[in-house]
Amino acid sequence: MIFGNKRPANGSGRRESFSQGERTRQTILTGAVKIAAREGLAAVTIGRLAKELRISKSGLIAHFGSKQSLELATLEAARKLFKDRVSVPAQATRGGIERLWNLCDLWLQHIERHVFSGPYFFTGAFLEYADQHGPLAGAVTDTAQDWFNTLRKAVEEAQKKGEIDPKASPKQIACELNGLMLGAHSAYLLKHRDCWREARTSLLGQLRRLATGDIPISTFTSERNWTKYLQGKS
Amino acid sequence: MIFGNKRPANGSGRRESFSQGERTRQTILTGAVKIAAREGLAAVTIGRLAKELRISKSGLIAHFGSKQSLELATLEAARKLFKDRVSVPAQATRGGIERLWNLCDLWLQHIERHVFSGPYFFTGAFLEYADQHGPLAGAVTDTAQDWFNTLRKAVEEAQKKGEIDPKASPKQIACELNGLMLGAHSAYLLKHRDCWREARTSLLGQLRRLATGDIPISTFTSERNWTKYLQGKS
Repeated sequence: MIFGNKRPANGSGRRESFSQGERTRQTILTGAVKIAAREGLAAVTIGRLAKELRISKSGLIAHFGSKQSLELATLEAARKLFKDRVSVPAQATRGGIERLWNLCDLWLQHIERHVFSGPYFFTGAFLEYADQHGPLAGAVTDTAQDWFNTLRKAVEEAQKKGEIDPKASPKQIACELNGLMLGAHSAYLLKHRDCWREARTSLLGQLRRLATGDIPISTFTSERNWTKYLQGKS
Repeated sequence: MIFGNKRPANGSGRRESFSQGERTRQTILTGAVKIAAREGLAAVTIGRLAKELRISKSGLIAHFGSKQSLELATLEAARKLFKDRVSVPAQATRGGIERLWNLCDLWLQHIERHVFSGPYFFTGAFLEYADQHGPLAGAVTDTAQDWFNTLRKAVEEAQKKGEIDPKASPKQIACELNGLMLGAHSAYLLKHRDCWREARTSLLGQLRRLATGDIPISTFTSERNWTKYLQGKS
């Protein structure tokens, strides 16, 4: 009867149990992403998480099995968070130069708004693993390559829409825009005032030089003009 | 007599001993920089160095005292190597836009030519320590700030020489050039073909947009034209 009370025959208890397990897993991963974002993936250990989250080590092992599985799951959780905050909302906007801008703007925002609690994801992680081999290195490099491809594809779409010079190399433009964002991140870490405003001015300047004549030049001279232009289009 | 033979009264033995000690210290630091460049400063331990360099742990402790002293000395050795390969040779060239170019070009070269055996110094180290406190974090941040200031000063000198638009912000230009270099480094780590040629084209494009009318526009269209222009000036 006791078992009967705890596990009803209709199976709802099983769903509840699964959901409880899923919630614990999410709590663990949120904690793991927080530690890794500040101190790197190597700092994410089963012992430390057990202590910080007050979960038994055996419970953690039941969820992730090994340190490597935990690291891979942490990386995947961070990757999902990045996608949810940057790539997905940018993909939901109009294609062309607008999406390209949104990708860059949302990237800057994910640093500005502290989506991660430190600078590790994903530039730090990429620099740590780019020269290494194995599943973690593969996952980190894939994330960096995915981001680069997303930027490159957005350039190609803007070219197809006739908004960006068709002769320019999408790969090179993606590399330049990515670089300007990385430069802004460094300036932010060096506590430069106005780094975000300056970064957006630099990015708009780069887009102005690449844009075809269809968009008035004055549109790119300030973030305000650019936002007005986008609002006028919608 | 035995002591007399080993340590002559004129003190030359003392000098030799110092020089021997200095050589050992250099060997240790070269090994430490090599490990850190690939795996980060945290991987530099007295135990690992003792094993890899076949030096006793007590000998290592005699040279560096603690893990933190060893890490700080490793950082300082890496910083010196970077300066010797990038900042110092660039400072030896003519000031103005030429020095600004040389700083960027030598920065790219230090990655291209594998001055360090991995991508840790100094972008990886900076991302690891920028948000932290303590002597190591201070030393890493100082290195990043020094590099940024060197770039900014070179822009200001080029403005004073009338070679770069005096209205442009030296801080913003330094941030953009630094960003283009970081973007190139990422492209290299993602194994993009032509990343160095493309990076130099991007950097020259940026300088072209900033340059005053005194330098012909065609100078900036390729690295070849730019090198020719510099050779013609010397």
